[in-house]
Amino acid sequence: MKNKKLSFIKQALFVGMVILTFSCNDQDKGIAVNETSAEDKPMNFVIIFADDMGYGDLGVYGHPTINTPNLDRMAFEGQKWTNFYVGASVCTPSRAALLTGRLPLRSGMASNVVRVLHPNSKNGLPKSEITIAEQLKKAGYSTGMVGKWHLGHKPESLPVNHGFDYYYGIPYSNDMDLTRKLTSYGDYWKLWTEEYKDLTPADFNVPMYRGTEIIERPVDQSTMTKRYTEETTKWIRDNREKPFFMYLAYNLPHVPLFASDESMGRSVRGLYGDVVEEIDDSVGQIMAMLEEEGLAENTMVIFTSDNGPWLPTEISGGSAGLLRNGKGSTWEGGFREPGIFWSPGNINPKVVMEMGTTMDLFTTFSSIAGVPVPDDRIIDGVDLSPVLFGEGKSPRKELFYYLGRDLFAARVGAYKAHMITQEVYVQGAKQVSHNPPLLFNVEEDPSERFNIANQYPEQIQKIMRVVELHKANMKAGPDLLGERGPENLVE
Amino acid sequence: MKNKKLSFIKQALFVGMVILTFSCNDQDKGIAVNETSAEDKPMNFVIIFADDMGYGDLGVYGHPTINTPNLDRMAFEGQKWTNFYVGASVCTPSRAALLTGRLPLRSGMASNVVRVLHPNSKNGLPKSEITIAEQLKKAGYSTGMVGKWHLGHKPESLPVNHGFDYYYGIPYSNDMDLTRKLTSYGDYWKLWTEEYKDLTPADFNVPMYRGTEIIERPVDQSTMTKRYTEETTKWIRDNREKPFFMYLAYNLPHVPLFASDESMGRSVRGLYGDVVEEIDDSVGQIMAMLEEEGLAENTMVIFTSDNGPWLPTEISGGSAGLLRNGKGSTWEGGFREPGIFWSPGNINPKVVMEMGTTMDLFTTFSSIAGVPVPDDRIIDGVDLSPVLFGEGKSPRKELFYYLGRDLFAARVGAYKAHMITQEVYVQGAKQVSHNPPLLFNVEEDPSERFNIANQYPEQIQKIMRVVELHKANMKAGPDLLGERGPENLVE
Repeated sequence: MKNKKLSFIKQALFVGMVILTFSCNDQDKGIAVNETSAEDKPMNFVIIFADDMGYGDLGVYGHPTINTPNLDRMAFEGQKWTNFYVGASVCTPSRAALLTGRLPLRSGMASNVVRVLHPNSKNGLPKSEITIAEQLKKAGYSTGMVGKWHLGHKPESLPVNHGFDYYYGIPYSNDMDLTRKLTSYGDYWKLWTEEYKDLTPADFNVPMYRGTEIIERPVDQSTMTKRYTEETTKWIRDNREKPFFMYLAYNLPHVPLFASDESMGRSVRGLYGDVVEEIDDSVGQIMAMLEEEGLAENTMVIFTSDNGPWLPTEISGGSAGLLRNGKGSTWEGGFREPGIFWSPGNINPKVVMEMGTTMDLFTTFSSIAGVPVPDDRIIDGVDLSPVLFGEGKSPRKELFYYLGRDLFAARVGAYKAHMITQEVYVQGAKQVSHNPPLLFNVEEDPSERFNIANQYPEQIQKIMRVVELHKANMKAGPDLLGERGPENLVE
Repeated sequence: MKNKKLSFIKQALFVGMVILTFSCNDQDKGIAVNETSAEDKPMNFVIIFADDMGYGDLGVYGHPTINTPNLDRMAFEGQKWTNFYVGASVCTPSRAALLTGRLPLRSGMASNVVRVLHPNSKNGLPKSEITIAEQLKKAGYSTGMVGKWHLGHKPESLPVNHGFDYYYGIPYSNDMDLTRKLTSYGDYWKLWTEEYKDLTPADFNVPMYRGTEIIERPVDQSTMTKRYTEETTKWIRDNREKPFFMYLAYNLPHVPLFASDESMGRSVRGLYGDVVEEIDDSVGQIMAMLEEEGLAENTMVIFTSDNGPWLPTEISGGSAGLLRNGKGSTWEGGFREPGIFWSPGNINPKVVMEMGTTMDLFTTFSSIAGVPVPDDRIIDGVDLSPVLFGEGKSPRKELFYYLGRDLFAARVGAYKAHMITQEVYVQGAKQVSHNPPLLFNVEEDPSERFNIANQYPEQIQKIMRVVELHKANMKAGPDLLGERGPENLVE
C-alpha cells in the first residue's frame, strides 16, 4: 500500500519536474505546480542540523530536564530513528559526509594532523564534490543555507559556491577566533566550566556572512538561533513557488553557549538547556510555518546533529544518554545522534531501530527527487525511502567509524568491532590496537559494556571481511585539513 | 480553567460517593453512577508496577532498542514525569512505601541486616499500616491486586489481609526459592550472564497464589505476564460497576527473565527486551480494554517501577539511561523511575519535570476519592492533583534517600547532598561518610558527574537543616525484615 504510494509520489514528482521545467522557462506565466494537489507536488527538503548535541539531549530521547515539546511532537508524528549515525564524530568531516553522501576520507575532509577546519586553514570542501544542493538543483530546486558551514571560509569554499543559492551564517565553529590568550591546553576546557559565565560574544571574533560578504564581526552570538529561524522561515516563504531545499545548521549547543534574552534562564538544565530549548522553539516555528503555508504535506523535515556531546566541556556539554563516550570518539556516543523524520501524510509514523546515516540523505533525496546519483564516484549513502514511506527494510547494513584517516571500528548488523580505540581530548593520547578487536552487540548492549569477542569470533571474522572489502575499495582523498597557518591552541 | 475543572471533578466525586453510598446500601436496585455522565463518575485507579525496570528502559525515556509503542503513547497522551521517585531502591521497602504512602523505615520495612523479605522471613507489612487499598475501601472501591506482592508471604500478610478483595500472583521475587546449589557469592551473578540461557522455571520453586491458596508451584514463569494481563482485564470488567482500584505488579523484568513463546526473540535487545516489550503489550491491552469499555475517561492509570536496574546482572539487567548507578544504590539510577500518568480528558498532557514519588499516590488518590488521609501517623505522600489536573506546582520539594535504615542522601529542590555513599552488591562494602556531603545539582547535572560542594556551601546548609528536621520527626519502626530462618546466599 505504502510502497504503491511511494511509486505514485515518484511518478508525480517526475511529472512535477516536467511542469516545473516548463514554468522555469516561462516564469511570467505563473507556477503550474501551485494548481495541483499535494500528491502531485515535488517534495521539499529541510535538514535541521544541531552542533554537538548528544543522543540523549532531547526529551523524546530521554533527557529528564530539557524540555523539547516541538521535537517530541515531530518524533511522535514522524519517525524517530534510534540507530541514526553521522559520517564522523567531529564537525568538518561530519558536515562533508552529510552534504556529499560520502565518507569524509574520500573528499579529503579528514586528517590525522587536525580534526577540523580552522580560521587559518588553507582549504575547504573541493569543488569536485557534489553536494545535496547541487544534486537537487538538477531537479530545479531552490537551495538555501542558514547557519554554520565549516567546510571552508574562503569565498570559493562558501555555500554559494557549493550549490546553494543563498547563504546566511558563520563559516566555522562559534568558539574559533577566540580573542583571549590561553597559555595551556587545559585552559581551553576551563573556559566552559567555572569560568564560562564571564565570557561574552566579544571574546570571539566570529564573522557572520550573507553570501560571500561579512556583514557583522564579531557577531552577536546571543541572537543567532532567533536570526537563523527568521532567515529560514523568510527564505522558505520567498522560495515556496519552486521545490526547495533548506539546510539549517545551528551553531549551538556547541560552546560558547549563548541564548537570547527571552530564553536565558528558562531551563532547569541551566544554560545548555536554555540553548537547546531555544532550538526546539525554532524547530516548532518552522513546523508551524510549514503547516500554516500548506507546505507540510509536501515537505520532509529531518532533525539531527553533527556529532555527540563534547564531554570535556563538562556542564556546558550535552549527554549521549546511555551511549558510551561522545564527540571525537568512535564509541556510539560520538557517532549516534537523534534522527527525526517528519512529513505528515507521507512518512509512516514509527520508531525505527534500523541503521541510517546522514550520508543516506543525499541518496534518499536524490531518489525522491528523481535525480540519478553520480556514477563517477563512490557514494556511501543508501536510499532510506523503503523505511520512510513503507514497511520496507533499511538497505543500510554496515557502518564505518573513522577517527581522522584511520578506520577504528565497523558495525555489521548488530555487531560492532573496535580494531583501534583512543582516548579523545587527552593530550598525547595514542592509538591502542586490539587484536582480536573488541566486540559488542550494540543492539543488545547499546552502552558497549560487555566485550564478547571471545564468545563470537565468527562475528569478528564477518566484520573483518567487510572491512577488508571496504579498504580495498577506498580511494582516499588528500589531507586537505592539515594545511594551515600558525597553530591554534586547541583543535 | 483546569483548576476549576479539578474542583468540579472533586465536587462530582463527592456527589458520586453519596450516590454510591446509597447504591451500596441498596445494591439490588442497580448502580446509580452508571446513569450519570463521565464527569459525575468517581475516578478508578490502576497502578501498573514493573520490577527492576530502569529509568532508561522505555522508548519514550530513551532506550534505542526496546520497542514500547503503548507506553510511548501513554506518555504522549498523558503526563511523562521525569523526576519521579520510589521510596527505596529495592523491592520490599519500595513496595511498602508505594502502598502506605510512608517511608519504609516508619513501617519497619527497612533493615540493615537484609534488604528485602525472603521465603524464610518471619514477618510482613504490619497490620497497623493502612494501604491504598484500605484507604480507597473507605470510599466504597473494589480493590484487586495481580502480581508480585513482596510484603510478607504468610497468610496474614498477603494482599487479601491488607485491603485487597482479590489477589492473584507470587508472594516474593521470582529468583527466590532457587533450587540450584550455589557455592559462592559470585555464582549468583553468573546465573544471569553466560549461564542464564540454561535456566528453566523449574529452577525456582516459586508459588502462585490466588487469595491465600497456593495454586501452582513451581509456577510456569514464562506465561506470567500474559496471565497477569488476563487476570487484570477480567477483574476490571467484573468489577466495573463500583469504582475500582487495581494494583498490577509484574514480577518482571527482575531476573530470571522468561517470556512467552510469542514474545521470545521479538526484541533486538535480546531476552530483556522481549520481556519489556511483552509488558508493553500488556499495558496496551489494558489501555485498549479501558477504552473499549468506556472506562478510560474516568480511570487514572499510572505506570512506574519499584527501583532502578540491577546492574550486576549485566546483560539481563536494565538501564538507568543517563542516570548514575542503579538498584540498591542512593544515586539517581536507583531511585528515579519512569512515571507515566494517563487519564484521557482529565490529565493535562505534558512532560512534568517537578518531583513526585510513588508515596504521593496514596495521598493523591485519597484526595481525588475524597477520603481524608490518616492523621494518627506521618504520611510522607503529597497530593499531586494540582500538576495532574492543572497548571499548579508539585508540593513535593524534598526527597530522602535511605539505604536500609540509614539516610544516605537528601534532595531539596534541584540540589542533592550525599552524606553517605556505599558500593552496592559488592561483598563487604562499607559505608563511606562525606563531610562536607557530596553536592550535585541533579536538574543541571542529572548524571551526578560534578560535585559542587565547594561552590555551594549554602545549599548544603539548607539541605542539612531539612535533614535535621526530618530526623527529629522520624519515629522509626522496628526492623521487621531482619528476623528470619537460615541465611539465603544472596539478598
